[in-house]
Amino acid sequence: MVGYGFMGKAHSQAWRNAARFYDLPSKPELTALCGRSSSAVAAAAETYGFAGWETDWERLIARDDIDVVDICTPGDSHAEIALAALEAGKHVLCEKPLANTVEQAREMAAAAERAAERGRHSMVGFNYRRVPALALARQLIADGRLGTVYQVRAQYLQDWIVDPEFPLVWRLQAEKAGSGALGDLGAHSIDLAQYLTGQRITGVSALLETLVPERPLPGAYSGLSAAADAGHVERGRVTVDDAALFTARFEAGAVGVFEATRFATGHKNAMRIEVSGSLGSVAFDCESLNELSYYDATMDPEIAGFRRILVTEPGHPYLAAWWPPGHLIGYEHTFTHEIKDFVEALASGTRPEPSFADGLQTQLVLAAVAQSAAKDSTYTLVGRQSQP
Amino acid sequence: MVGYGFMGKAHSQAWRNAARFYDLPSKPELTALCGRSSSAVAAAAETYGFAGWETDWERLIARDDIDVVDICTPGDSHAEIALAALEAGKHVLCEKPLANTVEQAREMAAAAERAAERGRHSMVGFNYRRVPALALARQLIADGRLGTVYQVRAQYLQDWIVDPEFPLVWRLQAEKAGSGALGDLGAHSIDLAQYLTGQRITGVSALLETLVPERPLPGAYSGLSAAADAGHVERGRVTVDDAALFTARFEAGAVGVFEATRFATGHKNAMRIEVSGSLGSVAFDCESLNELSYYDATMDPEIAGFRRILVTEPGHPYLAAWWPPGHLIGYEHTFTHEIKDFVEALASGTRPEPSFADGLQTQLVLAAVAQSAAKDSTYTLVGRQSQP
Amino acid sequence: MVGYGFMGKAHSQAWRNAARFYDLPSKPELTALCGRSSSAVAAAAETYGFAGWETDWERLIARDDIDVVDICTPGDSHAEIALAALEAGKHVLCEKPLANTVEQAREMAAAAERAAERGRHSMVGFNYRRVPALALARQLIADGRLGTVYQVRAQYLQDWIVDPEFPLVWRLQAEKAGSGALGDLGAHSIDLAQYLTGQRITGVSALLETLVPERPLPGAYSGLSAAADAGHVERGRVTVDDAALFTARFEAGAVGVFEATRFATGHKNAMRIEVSGSLGSVAFDCESLNELSYYDATMDPEIAGFRRILVTEPGHPYLAAWWPPGHLIGYEHTFTHEIKDFVEALASGTRPEPSFADGLQTQLVLAAVAQSAAKDSTYTLVGRQSQP
Amino acid sequence: MVGYGFMGKAHSQAWRNAARFYDLPSKPELTALCGRSSSAVAAAAETYGFAGWETDWERLIARDDIDVVDICTPGDSHAEIALAALEAGKHVLCEKPLANTVEQAREMAAAAERAAERGRHSMVGFNYRRVPALALARQLIADGRLGTVYQVRAQYLQDWIVDPEFPLVWRLQAEKAGSGALGDLGAHSIDLAQYLTGQRITGVSALLETLVPERPLPGAYSGLSAAADAGHVERGRVTVDDAALFTARFEAGAVGVFEATRFATGHKNAMRIEVSGSLGSVAFDCESLNELSYYDATMDPEIAGFRRILVTEPGHPYLAAWWPPGHLIGYEHTFTHEIKDFVEALASGTRPEPSFADGLQTQLVLAAVAQSAAKDSTYTLVGRQSQP
Repeated sequence: MVGYGFMGKAHSQAWRNAARFYDLPSKPELTALCGRSSSAVAAAAETYGFAGWETDWERLIARDDIDVVDICTPGDSHAEIALAALEAGKHVLCEKPLANTVEQAREMAAAAERAAERGRHSMVGFNYRRVPALALARQLIADGRLGTVYQVRAQYLQDWIVDPEFPLVWRLQAEKAGSGALGDLGAHSIDLAQYLTGQRITGVSALLETLVPERPLPGAYSGLSAAADAGHVERGRVTVDDAALFTARFEAGAVGVFEATRFATGHKNAMRIEVSGSLGSVAFDCESLNELSYYDATMDPEIAGFRRILVTEPGHPYLAAWWPPGHLIGYEHTFTHEIKDFVEALASGTRPEPSFADGLQTQLVLAAVAQSAAKDSTYTLVGRQSQP
Repeated sequence: MVGYGFMGKAHSQAWRNAARFYDLPSKPELTALCGRSSSAVAAAAETYGFAGWETDWERLIARDDIDVVDICTPGDSHAEIALAALEAGKHVLCEKPLANTVEQAREMAAAAERAAERGRHSMVGFNYRRVPALALARQLIADGRLGTVYQVRAQYLQDWIVDPEFPLVWRLQAEKAGSGALGDLGAHSIDLAQYLTGQRITGVSALLETLVPERPLPGAYSGLSAAADAGHVERGRVTVDDAALFTARFEAGAVGVFEATRFATGHKNAMRIEVSGSLGSVAFDCESLNELSYYDATMDPEIAGFRRILVTEPGHPYLAAWWPPGHLIGYEHTFTHEIKDFVEALASGTRPEPSFADGLQTQLVLAAVAQSAAKDSTYTLVGRQSQP
Repeated sequence: MVGYGFMGKAHSQAWRNAARFYDLPSKPELTALCGRSSSAVAAAAETYGFAGWETDWERLIARDDIDVVDICTPGDSHAEIALAALEAGKHVLCEKPLANTVEQAREMAAAAERAAERGRHSMVGFNYRRVPALALARQLIADGRLGTVYQVRAQYLQDWIVDPEFPLVWRLQAEKAGSGALGDLGAHSIDLAQYLTGQRITGVSALLETLVPERPLPGAYSGLSAAADAGHVERGRVTVDDAALFTARFEAGAVGVFEATRFATGHKNAMRIEVSGSLGSVAFDCESLNELSYYDATMDPEIAGFRRILVTEPGHPYLAAWWPPGHLIGYEHTFTHEIKDFVEALASGTRPEPSFADGLQTQLVLAAVAQSAAKDSTYTLVGRQSQP
Repeated sequence: MVGYGFMGKAHSQAWRNAARFYDLPSKPELTALCGRSSSAVAAAAETYGFAGWETDWERLIARDDIDVVDICTPGDSHAEIALAALEAGKHVLCEKPLANTVEQAREMAAAAERAAERGRHSMVGFNYRRVPALALARQLIADGRLGTVYQVRAQYLQDWIVDPEFPLVWRLQAEKAGSGALGDLGAHSIDLAQYLTGQRITGVSALLETLVPERPLPGAYSGLSAAADAGHVERGRVTVDDAALFTARFEAGAVGVFEATRFATGHKNAMRIEVSGSLGSVAFDCESLNELSYYDATMDPEIAGFRRILVTEPGHPYLAAWWPPGHLIGYEHTFTHEIKDFVEALASGTRPEPSFADGLQTQLVLAAVAQSAAKDSTYTLVGRQSQP
């Protein structure tokens, strides 16, 4: 594993535990963790249960005793590491977003395709697909229970930078983060919308907004309290979007509306998505992770209503491994399920999903959103995966 | 009152009952109801409690014993009746939307302004402003409790035409209805968004979609069952939007996302709006009419949370007249409150709100939405009330 | 109508409006309102739309131009007025509780029975039976959709006397109010539990508690602020229950748990009831008046869940008269529905429900609750309607 | 660890992971798992990450390389194992209920007290105390935010035996399970009610009911399908309660109502508890594990309301170790938190809670409930921990 921040912590928990709950065809071994600072990575390796550690990802990839590389670094290094790892014959799991640019994503998807032909597989970490409630939603839609899909409404609402004095961290700088709420949050909504409906987004019209355009430089307050008190806080420009709003068309005729924002005061991680079709609707809110709301329009209207399905039954996706009905599972097990499916796919030689091509697809939508926003919200076609 | 359909029924209930609950400065008398069919209007007058009836609105307006004209007809006749009534020296209450075109609305606003100078007043029926929970939301925002307003998210979700065999009624024909979900539902959201934030919408980017483009002509099934059985149902083109999706900018910097749709399967009248600011958020859903959800970001994060305010306390707007705390009021009393405020304004000589100018403002936004949708969703400025 | 407090206001609204929405076989006329103070009753008659007024209920009953007497006074006068009205050949609608004692209730039920044989009918005002969601619940249970009923859980939660400085009003004095939360709130729960299940309660075990045993006498603060400031507030003993908790058995084997309290801080009028059976459950909360929650256990567990039925469809009980789906109705229309059913029953000569015998049945349960609480919560059989 | 069923699986997950998230003073080592079948226990040890295994708990306890014994067996063996383990100088964690009888519990509490004086500690596994939302509730109450506690309402609703053809498993047999819903579910509610309020329950009045008195013997259907088809299914008597309903008094004057049932159709694990005091209320539902509902009655009534606190902030109990705000944790981490606190207590030499004395206290309430139910629900005092 490369990287041991939030995602490294979540992924290592999943690698450690997947085989404790699922009867996997092969048992993961946490061979080595990679990070730049030797003291920090050594401590993290100990905490997270890795047998060893490296400070150079190229050395990691060169090791013979490693079959799978899990990339948990920020997006700007994904392409380089993933390409090298695939080249070195490793299976690769790469956190989302696949890359910071369409070009990198395209290159990665192509490399993944070539590697797959050699039996080396790759997957991108859109973990929300493995929320049992969303996997159930996908089943219901795939089974035709919603009929013709007409509309998608997706919101990803957070509020951690509402305070204008929150500092200008790297995530608010375009050169490091690529984009703001759009790539960080909107990417999840885009992947899910396409996954749930089984339809690609073909065009978008977007509005990106930076609601607080200048912020204190990191350390501005702590370092210079006298200056801060006097109001002389040094500030820098926010170069990413605080909120990304867009409408979309899907390939089979559905339309959708998307909002990704870090300014939805009071919402901590409200990743919500609803799909409406001719025969029903399903709705999900990540702040109620174990629930799916389902409306079946084929019932008598007098007894129809949105149904709160508590997705904890043994017959629900992934749930047989866990606890009795009504006992909730947490966010972290989206990753446990991801590892389970990845390991099973590797063992059986099938291609895991979402693929790098799926990651590219989301990247193409993100690019179209940015492009539309840059030209007065004009409707913009999403590029094709296969270049002309 | 002119017209006695859904709105006429609701308005007459309000006129009959306002003085039973509020101590009004003058008691409304339901003098005459106007409709085209004498037998039908006579029956409706009896049912709704009008002393008499007319079949010609010009005769109604000409009557000396009438001070106020309440227009509850479809939008295409609003302008003509309202202009004549104001000309005849009546006070006018006009259902929303103010008119079917910006030009008519502009003419009406100008006439209302001139009449106001002569002491004759007018109001447009955006009844949702008088939902106590929304009036409370306006108070909280006006009091600064939300700080700087950053975002609006508005949904108006219905589902009554999801079935593709639902017939081509007049509301689905542009020449009669003007627009579809946009004008019927979106108009409410637009007025509320501007009312709650105290900011006008300055530009929009929109996508309008007709999801079921052809429908059976009315009577196609009932009239010709043999033909229908054989699949020879005569169909016509739907010429209005089934769903209207748009993003918006507000004059003081906020951004918003709007969805108005009749294809949100399972939602019957989910008029939802949420406003997020630097210090808090308020959220409302018309399917929970007596509740306001409020997040106060100035509290310690450990005890902060969205608060379900049951808006039934005597200190809440309009509530002192009703029942003890916890006893809900219904949708119809948005009109009772409207009549109360209207009668009080007339008695005191102050100008009632929302004014025809407010109605025009919404019309200008609707027009900008339609215009943007017609030119590839390009961002389109909302026209000014005062013509150049 | 006798009495014009909270219930008089609600009932008069219903009498005035029932025929505006329902096509009733006869149109109610509000002939006279009766109260002790001539100036106050005259004003109330004017406000509520009564043609005249009386200050002596015996004179009211003696009038020839009155067919129906609606008793909205406190419980201690119900028996006397109702017995006289029935004797005088009037139909009688009597607010709940039917009486303050079992003896009075028994006498009233007997008189109602005799009057019914002469074609004069009576009804007791358990208005919650006419909440459309609860009428729907009754339908579902009667149709067998819940299978064998196993359990009832009922809560009636208010909080208006949580403040220990709230004064000792008449409702907190046993000689006037009979009991506290038990009779005021618990009576509704008891009637509903029996109505919904179709089963009588046969025995109870109860705990009654007065949580704040002494309170300021009314006016203690306002009258003597100096004394109040000095802490010399005169207090009296609370002689009714603040909270009534009991368990129950039903005649066909179900068991139930009941809580009626005015000390449920934060709950304003949470009259909640849930019935669970072998095939499903229904749950209701009066703070969400237009909703019924329904779980259908015959469905696949993977798609089963509590369904929020928005009870506003034209096919729902009472709803065809009101607004389009999704537009809520208020608490007051429980009375409108009551009047509708009462008028229809009188016109057709059928016996309206709930009858005085139903009122007696609730009184018998209340008495058993009080008796059990008085003897160490020992299980106590509910008395029989027909005396030995 | 002794036992590897549901609780063994949950506890081992907690032991494995606690030190991955919390910086514990000592790192747990999973030395040996104990079970009767060598092949099964060996497989479970492998799956759950134990270094070894035993088939005889006395051998386990005799091992020198073991400091802590975690008892996850059914309740009838708790006393014997715990007493021996304490005698052998081990620290002991024992699943709830502490024992099947008051006598055993009393003996265990005494042994725990003696062991504590020798520096060997014990804890009983009322894991719900470590739900962060409930730990927060305890903090709020302990800080006085609810003022004087007046009422507790507790429900533990499950539905897994509603089907009358569900077989007569051991949990439905008194000789093995002790009691039914009462001990299995009600024990949690009792412990929590006492923990949250800080008050012991002093007396109860109870009704226990077996709603389906006979059930098919296990295997009756599968083994003899012909007989089953013919209706000759062999049945046995259910000897435990299906539902336990009781009212209670607390030592400082509060009253409470409790329901524990396996017949609440549609509810899977709805462990709900609400505490109301003079200044506010808190409410919790285990089906929304990461939320606490809090009403603060000291606020202006116009902006007061039940607040949904999403208990995922770093300042919330236990949460700093987990994920960013808004990312939910699962049921299993109630055990992780339990292990964290237990390990920290052992390292610091403080006594962990809940103690065996707390377990005994719950047992005394359970016994009083059973006793009251056996004598016509008569109010029954809860026995004292210290015998006369």
